[in-house]
Amino acid sequence: MMMTPYEIQCATEIYAVMNEVSTREIESFAHELVAAAAAVVLPYFRRPLAIENKGKQHFDPVTEADRATERCLREMISARFPRHEIVGEEYGITTGSGPYRWILDPIDGTRAFMSGVPTWGTLIALYRDDQPIFGVMNQPFVDERFYAGIEDVWWARGAARRQLATSEQIELHGATLFATSPDMFSAVDEWPRFQALSRAVRLTRYGIDCYAYCLLAAGHIDLVVEAGLGIYDVAALVPIVERAGGVITNWQGGKVSGGQVIAAANPTLHAHALRMLQNS
Amino acid sequence: MMMTPYEIQCATEIYAVMNEVSTREIESFAHELVAAAAAVVLPYFRRPLAIENKGKQHFDPVTEADRATERCLREMISARFPRHEIVGEEYGITTGSGPYRWILDPIDGTRAFMSGVPTWGTLIALYRDDQPIFGVMNQPFVDERFYAGIEDVWWARGAARRQLATSEQIELHGATLFATSPDMFSAVDEWPRFQALSRAVRLTRYGIDCYAYCLLAAGHIDLVVEAGLGIYDVAALVPIVERAGGVITNWQGGKVSGGQVIAAANPTLHAHALRMLQNS
Repeated sequence: MMMTPYEIQCATEIYAVMNEVSTREIESFAHELVAAAAAVVLPYFRRPLAIENKGKQHFDPVTEADRATERCLREMISARFPRHEIVGEEYGITTGSGPYRWILDPIDGTRAFMSGVPTWGTLIALYRDDQPIFGVMNQPFVDERFYAGIEDVWWARGAARRQLATSEQIELHGATLFATSPDMFSAVDEWPRFQALSRAVRLTRYGIDCYAYCLLAAGHIDLVVEAGLGIYDVAALVPIVERAGGVITNWQGGKVSGGQVIAAANPTLHAHALRMLQNS
Repeated sequence: MMMTPYEIQCATEIYAVMNEVSTREIESFAHELVAAAAAVVLPYFRRPLAIENKGKQHFDPVTEADRATERCLREMISARFPRHEIVGEEYGITTGSGPYRWILDPIDGTRAFMSGVPTWGTLIALYRDDQPIFGVMNQPFVDERFYAGIEDVWWARGAARRQLATSEQIELHGATLFATSPDMFSAVDEWPRFQALSRAVRLTRYGIDCYAYCLLAAGHIDLVVEAGLGIYDVAALVPIVERAGGVITNWQGGKVSGGQVIAAANPTLHAHALRMLQNS
């Protein structure tokens, strides 16, 4: 079960007292991390960059931009919260001794990054046990930040800030569906299911990684259905989608932790899309 | 045959003398158009927007944002150059009496626009007979402009400006390939050919309309292969790709005027990709 905002706040406050830091300080630290990550990653964007393939069966690129950004984030977190666990895409798990876990994806959308497309993002989440305290997606080239905190969920760009709220689209035939790539689905099982859903919606588009979940939270699109994700791909996006009014689960309707993911603007649309995925 | 830059300059200068405007004034006017289009289109982006379907067989959206932007451009051009022909995606052809033709796509990537994704662009081109004088792609939300003029070809953002130059990637197995969507290809003939090419390259990505050709001109990606385009989708992109060092043709290797398009970073890569498309 998801914690209520009140329960999250209680848990966070207990933690803060124990650690002699306030929730405000924790949130403020989150934005320090975002700013530091942006300063590291941006000089690499659209510059010549060595690209390694860390995939065994398919092309799975990683660059020094991913690694340098994650190292920066890990160093800042370890210095400030030495007992917290850290999970990152590039450097794995640093175990901790408490209930708190940071989940990092320095560049979600490395393929977009290496292609010069400004739809990648830096993802940072803090969880207490299995409950998100906050999640943030930052796209520093366009200068857009999507943030789900303890008290609010917002989009910001420069001085502009707006509360995030999902769309009221409840019918598949009026919905806009996104996935990062057709190649992310298994050919035999997942792709036919996705295609059945795709045929039922108004518009299907590909290509924008974490940006899609954020545009769903902002009410611009209605569905994101993906597969083959890691925990670091979704951890920061779960609170952004949920606190904006959306629903995000796996393809069985259960808690999402990577793998197959379905995010919908509201519970009704989620139920329609889930039924289509399961019965195809 | 393509005109040489010298021939283009001669033609433009003859025209300018005849019309008592300088080439500098024509180029300056192009950027006035870009700024005016941005002022009209931006207030519509990520705001509630009525979306009409102008497609008969498939979803082909058009919005008031497309129409208002094109009206603005047409009015400015007609006032300044009343004898020039104007071709636009939304309002068709206004015939002229000379060799000059403006080709406009107020929002290339309307599907991205309506989804809140900042990868659409305003495309403006000026042709003399069948030769491009200049072409410009402007993405006003991200604030990026890609311009191919009489003397230079550049990318600009704020005060930053860089010359555009395509990549030196000559092998398919190291190339990055883009197309806007798998849905743009005919299932029987085009999709199998595209898939054969996709299997030969390092990375295939979908989703970014005119942005892909501009990223190719800037050297970040190596191939764009699409189908079902209109003349307004490509007219501004042809000089941007060619003057940055790339090659852009139809799938038969001939002059591109919409329909099937292949753009490559250099002649060698173009020949490899064309052979793959034709022999699959």
